[in-house]
Amino acid sequence: MPADALVLATRNQGKLRELARILGDQVTLAGLDAFPGAPDVPETGATFEANALLKARAIAAYAKLPAVADDSGLCVDALNGMPGVLSARWAGQHGDDQANLELVLAQVADVPDTRLGARFVCAAALVVPADGVAPEWVVTGQVEGRLIRAPKGTGGFGYDPIFQPDGFTETTAEMTPEAKDAISHRGRAFRALAPFITALI
Amino acid sequence: MPADALVLATRNQGKLRELARILGDQVTLAGLDAFPGAPDVPETGATFEANALLKARAIAAYAKLPAVADDSGLCVDALNGMPGVLSARWAGQHGDDQANLELVLAQVADVPDTRLGARFVCAAALVVPADGVAPEWVVTGQVEGRLIRAPKGTGGFGYDPIFQPDGFTETTAEMTPEAKDAISHRGRAFRALAPFITALI
Repeated sequence: MPADALVLATRNQGKLRELARILGDQVTLAGLDAFPGAPDVPETGATFEANALLKARAIAAYAKLPAVADDSGLCVDALNGMPGVLSARWAGQHGDDQANLELVLAQVADVPDTRLGARFVCAAALVVPADGVAPEWVVTGQVEGRLIRAPKGTGGFGYDPIFQPDGFTETTAEMTPEAKDAISHRGRAFRALAPFITALI
Repeated sequence: MPADALVLATRNQGKLRELARILGDQVTLAGLDAFPGAPDVPETGATFEANALLKARAIAAYAKLPAVADDSGLCVDALNGMPGVLSARWAGQHGDDQANLELVLAQVADVPDTRLGARFVCAAALVVPADGVAPEWVVTGQVEGRLIRAPKGTGGFGYDPIFQPDGFTETTAEMTPEAKDAISHRGRAFRALAPFITALI
């Protein structure tokens, strides 16, 4: 691992490629696959920002390299902004995308169309390991839109098939990865963090 | 039905008895069982108050008598105040108490004990039928407490087995009906509404 490498706290290759596209080739980017012994960090924070910082701090301390981590989710107006930080385990089991999506649709079944506003939110954190106080940055990105009543599209993951961004007639599951990056919560958060990353190099 | 009767918009005999105990014998109280053709009112409001008013207005207009309706639910801090108005259908089907309770426990499984604060909230509305603008009152009652990790007690209904009111070591499902009335959200809301009801008589 080069001394100027950056670790992205994820095992998701799609996220790694997305951040690599945004940062260009000036940064050596590694995922958690390069650190098999890295700690598994429980996402116990009350906010996306808290969870992103928890993960970035733990990985920066373990890898002794600057680390980026993100936490994101779907915030539905009619659910007071939930599933939010519980997006990945909304139906009770962690990571069952289909069950999570179906539960949200059932919960809003009686909610009028006028109150189906929703947004995807992503917090991205950068932590630089240091003796004493570690420098930290955290930014958020979001994309506003609304829920639709039945899933459409096979791209993306999670709640993408039921989320239609404002100004579009398709869901984020019907967009190309590049089109989704351009407007997505994660794309926006990573782009907002990029200047802080490149300033480190 | 006497001309000075009051209709409580419920088919739940427990709620009828509770309001009767609070009002005493000065009011003739009827439930929806006395009005078989009464409309079934969808609870589409964003707040407990809105739903209680929707129901009370519909029943007052139908029965041509003053009507009381309540809407209540469990508000969990770590769920941004949800299940809230969706308490009865949280797991997707309407009225499956056990599924609703189990889903809430699974959703907060990774939430630290320090963030298990919750409250039961009840809005109670009184609507008097009138030509033109109908007089309306709406009040709320709540009981603060916290979730416990596993159900205890067989009394009550809904989320009672996982709700421990502040100052108590038992859940509301372990209390006698009278002890629960004394502190409950519904007891408090009905008692707050009682002076407006008796002023009508």
